[in-house]
Amino acid sequence: MISKNQIKYVRQLEQKKFRYREGLFVAEGTKVVGDLLKRYQPHAIFATAAWLSANPTTKAVEVSDDELRRLSFQQHPQQVLALFPLPSSVTPSAPSVALSIALDGIQDPGNLGTIIRIADWFGITTIICSEDTVDAWNPKVVQATMGSIARVNIIYTNLPSFLDSLPTDYPVYGTLLDGENIYTQPLTKEGLIVMGNEGNGISEAVRQRVNRRLLIPDFHDGETADSLNVAIATAITCSEFRRR
Amino acid sequence: MISKNQIKYVRQLEQKKFRYREGLFVAEGTKVVGDLLKRYQPHAIFATAAWLSANPTTKAVEVSDDELRRLSFQQHPQQVLALFPLPSSVTPSAPSVALSIALDGIQDPGNLGTIIRIADWFGITTIICSEDTVDAWNPKVVQATMGSIARVNIIYTNLPSFLDSLPTDYPVYGTLLDGENIYTQPLTKEGLIVMGNEGNGISEAVRQRVNRRLLIPDFHDGETADSLNVAIATAITCSEFRRR
Repeated sequence: MISKNQIKYVRQLEQKKFRYREGLFVAEGTKVVGDLLKRYQPHAIFATAAWLSANPTTKAVEVSDDELRRLSFQQHPQQVLALFPLPSSVTPSAPSVALSIALDGIQDPGNLGTIIRIADWFGITTIICSEDTVDAWNPKVVQATMGSIARVNIIYTNLPSFLDSLPTDYPVYGTLLDGENIYTQPLTKEGLIVMGNEGNGISEAVRQRVNRRLLIPDFHDGETADSLNVAIATAITCSEFRRR
Repeated sequence: MISKNQIKYVRQLEQKKFRYREGLFVAEGTKVVGDLLKRYQPHAIFATAAWLSANPTTKAVEVSDDELRRLSFQQHPQQVLALFPLPSSVTPSAPSVALSIALDGIQDPGNLGTIIRIADWFGITTIICSEDTVDAWNPKVVQATMGSIARVNIIYTNLPSFLDSLPTDYPVYGTLLDGENIYTQPLTKEGLIVMGNEGNGISEAVRQRVNRRLLIPDFHDGETADSLNVAIATAITCSEFRRR
């Protein structure tokens, strides 16, 4: 049994301001909540009898299907909704021998969620986001990660300043129209892969700090200017770094 | 000025049954409609004064912003909505020296749209869809292709029967859990890349007909069974075929 105030509280967590004030984010469904529970202590769990009987040792408030629907941000709520503390924000440091991703102004929650999932697949554990990148703890992003958000560290920071703090020769890769064919360029094992905004690509301030310019060539003959979705471009880029 | 009946007619084209009965599909926005106009004769165009003044030689019915909103399937309609004849269905034949994609039961319109866009980028001009794949002329798919639907031929057919019609040694690739590492396997210049359903992968009937089993390896250490979205897997696979 839950109160109207509890429902209102959870639903307000859709707003970034409210999430940061309360220091909490929402995750839903057996897969996403299950993955987060492996790494984080929950603040609260609201679950149906079915979930509780499958997870007997986890403390949760039992809710009816109807109550879950009223709490949920999903069209088809799945057994459980949990509140987790926002991971404490850390100052990023130059990853020594790791490959990381930096996002410069990604706006679409689905794209960010998919990029977090791609990072997880390719064993990339850190994503550094510019301050104008959509918030990763937005419920839409959390769900789109399919649980990968539990395994990837996401850090928001002033991206140009962060890039300035790196050693001068630290490899900062970006895909740019005047870049070199990614399939034939040398790629290092460590470095930062910068992906830009959906409409405008990498911002001028960040572009100046990219020291290895890459291009994903198209194989289309004809005049039409095509483009790849940023999540698709991220997947192709990560695949190319990892296969070598 | 448009009538209520015209609005109703256009909006009914959201339904597959109605699209096939009328032999028409809907496209919206300057980019998608513009790309389709390069290849297809429109059946009707509804456009705002702004679009008409930029496209003075194209015959169209002028509509107000409010009328366009009432016709549109988009949250933010953009200047133009057009009806195009459904491309006439052709019987697929074994592509001789081309690389093609076959889709086995893709359900999500966004995924299909993204896959069509990926095919276009990688110069793949034919996609063969199983009969239970979501309809490519669904307004959501058309918009998600960002215009690529104008440049890729999409054919619906009985996929197992089509595969049976191919020469025995024709390369039919599929990504399967027991496949071989795609990064190190030999890949041919021609062949068919089969991608499966979002939840269940490639169906049993089609799997039996895959003669080159591939696997996209993950680089994640840890026990969690992750998965890649089917559009992301398609992008990585196509990239790997084309870079060689």
